[in-house]
Amino acid sequence: MVFTTDAVIKSGAGFVHKLSHDSECLGTRMKLNVYVPLRKSCPVLFYLGGLTCTGDNGIEKGGFLHKASELGLAMVFPDTSPRTTEGNTIKGEHDSYDLGSGAGFYINATAEPWSSHYQMETYIVEELPRLLSEQFPQFNWDSKGITGHSMGGHGALTLFLKYPNKFKSVSAFAPICNPTQCPWGQKAFTNYLGSVSAGEAHDATCILKRLGKDAPAATILIDVGTGDNFYKQGQLLPEHFKDAAAGTPVTVDLRFQEDYDHSYYFIQDFSENHLEFHGKKLYQ
Amino acid sequence: MVFTTDAVIKSGAGFVHKLSHDSECLGTRMKLNVYVPLRKSCPVLFYLGGLTCTGDNGIEKGGFLHKASELGLAMVFPDTSPRTTEGNTIKGEHDSYDLGSGAGFYINATAEPWSSHYQMETYIVEELPRLLSEQFPQFNWDSKGITGHSMGGHGALTLFLKYPNKFKSVSAFAPICNPTQCPWGQKAFTNYLGSVSAGEAHDATCILKRLGKDAPAATILIDVGTGDNFYKQGQLLPEHFKDAAAGTPVTVDLRFQEDYDHSYYFIQDFSENHLEFHGKKLYQ
Repeated sequence: MVFTTDAVIKSGAGFVHKLSHDSECLGTRMKLNVYVPLRKSCPVLFYLGGLTCTGDNGIEKGGFLHKASELGLAMVFPDTSPRTTEGNTIKGEHDSYDLGSGAGFYINATAEPWSSHYQMETYIVEELPRLLSEQFPQFNWDSKGITGHSMGGHGALTLFLKYPNKFKSVSAFAPICNPTQCPWGQKAFTNYLGSVSAGEAHDATCILKRLGKDAPAATILIDVGTGDNFYKQGQLLPEHFKDAAAGTPVTVDLRFQEDYDHSYYFIQDFSENHLEFHGKKLYQ
Repeated sequence: MVFTTDAVIKSGAGFVHKLSHDSECLGTRMKLNVYVPLRKSCPVLFYLGGLTCTGDNGIEKGGFLHKASELGLAMVFPDTSPRTTEGNTIKGEHDSYDLGSGAGFYINATAEPWSSHYQMETYIVEELPRLLSEQFPQFNWDSKGITGHSMGGHGALTLFLKYPNKFKSVSAFAPICNPTQCPWGQKAFTNYLGSVSAGEAHDATCILKRLGKDAPAATILIDVGTGDNFYKQGQLLPEHFKDAAAGTPVTVDLRFQEDYDHSYYFIQDFSENHLEFHGKKLYQ
C-alpha cells in the first residue's frame, strides 16, 4: 500500500481512513484523512483547511460526512503544511501562527528556508491524487472538486483557476480572496516567494483579472459570515474577487451569512449545502 | 451576570455561549459551552463528556447543534472534571488519563486528595442548573434531560437514576454501565471513594438492581458500536445494565451499531436520533 493506514473508522455508509506517508515533494512525513464511501466509483472532493489547522479539523468539526455518505462522495482532508519530523527540522516553522507550520498557503515556496519543504501546490495537485489513485482505485479523478476554509479557501480558488482541467467544481468558506492586498497574504508571499508581487501568480483576484475572458466557465460558491472578524479586518476581501469576475466566464455566487463568524460552527451550518453544490457538478 | 461570557457564536437558529465561572462546590475556575436556541422557552439537555474530554469535544464534534436548533432544545456541555487554575494545584491530576483531570466520573469524591475539589455530582445536579437558570431565564428546568458518552454515559445513567425528579429523559452513547466491574470504574472508585464497594452507590447497574420495582418508569436509549474496543475489553458492560432492568419499570433500548467504534464519528451518526428521542419526552 502507498499509505500507512493508522485507523479505519466507520462513519455513515463509509469509512474514515487515517493515513500517513512520506511525501516525496515535501520531504516530510505527512498525515491526512480520507472519507471513503462504500461505492464502486466515486467523485472526489478535496477540503483544504485554514491557518493553524491540520487534516483533522475539517473532517471532525465540519459536518461534511453525513452528506458525503448520502451523495457517495469521497473527501480528502490533507494537512495544511509540511511538519517537522524527527531529524528533519524546518527552521522557524513554529515562530508564528500565520507562517510555517499550519500555514502552507498551498503554494510552492521559492525562497529559503521554506523552499526545501514548502511545496504544497505540487503536493495537493500532483502527488496526493497520484498516491490516492493507487490506494483507492474506485476514486474517479475525472470528477474532482475542491473547497476550503480561509487560507484553504484561497487554495481552493487559486488551484481551481490555475488547473481548470483538474477540477470540475469549486467553493469556499470565508476564503482569503486577494492575498496580495491583505496582511496574511503579504507576510506569506514575502517569506515564501521573496516578494508580494511574486504572489500575484497565486492570488485568486489577480489570476482571474489576468485570465479575463480566458477564465474557465464556472460558478464559484462562496459563503462569508457578516460577524467574521477577519472579514471585517480586510483579510478576506471577497468583493475584490467578485468584482474581478465581471466580464469573465466566471460567476461568483457570494453569499453573506448574517451573524456568522470564522469558526467551524459557521462551516458546519453550510457544509451540506456546499456538498450538494459539488455533487451536482461532480455527478454531471 | 453569573458567568463570564468568553464568546457568543452563531449556530443555526441560536448561539453557542462559551462561558467560564468560579465554581463554589469545586473550588476551581470552570469552562463550559451552552447552546441557546432563539426561543422564549426551551427544554435543556445536558451532555456529559467522556474520559480526557472537556466541554468542547461534544459540542464541536458531536453533530448535535442542527437538530437542537430545529427542536429548540438548549444544550449544556460542562467540563468533565475540575482543573488546576493558577495557585490552585490539584495533586496528581495529570498522572493518568483515567483519573484526575478529564476524569471526574460525575461523583463527589470522599477520599483525599480528591475530595477538596472533585465534587462533580453536586456541580452537575445542583450548582450548574442554579447558575444557568439565573443567566438564561428562558430555560425550562421542569423539562431537563441528560445524555453522555462513555464516562459521561455513566454519569447520565447514574444521575438519572439517583435524581429521577430532576431529569425527564436519559440516553447514552457507549456508556460505562457497571463501573464496579470494570478497570476504569475500579480505579476511579478506589481513588475517589476509598474502595470499589463504596462505588456501588454510583454504579448504574447496582443502583437499578437496588431500586428494583421502585426505579423510575422510563425508557433508556443506549447505543454501542460493535467495533468499540472498550466494549470488547469489558469496560462498558451494557448487557449487565439491560439485565438489571428486568422486573423494574425501566426499559433499556440497547442498540448495537455495526462496525462503529468509540469515537465522535460514532456519536455524530446517532446524535440527531438521540435528540429526537429526548425532544419527544421533553416537549411532552
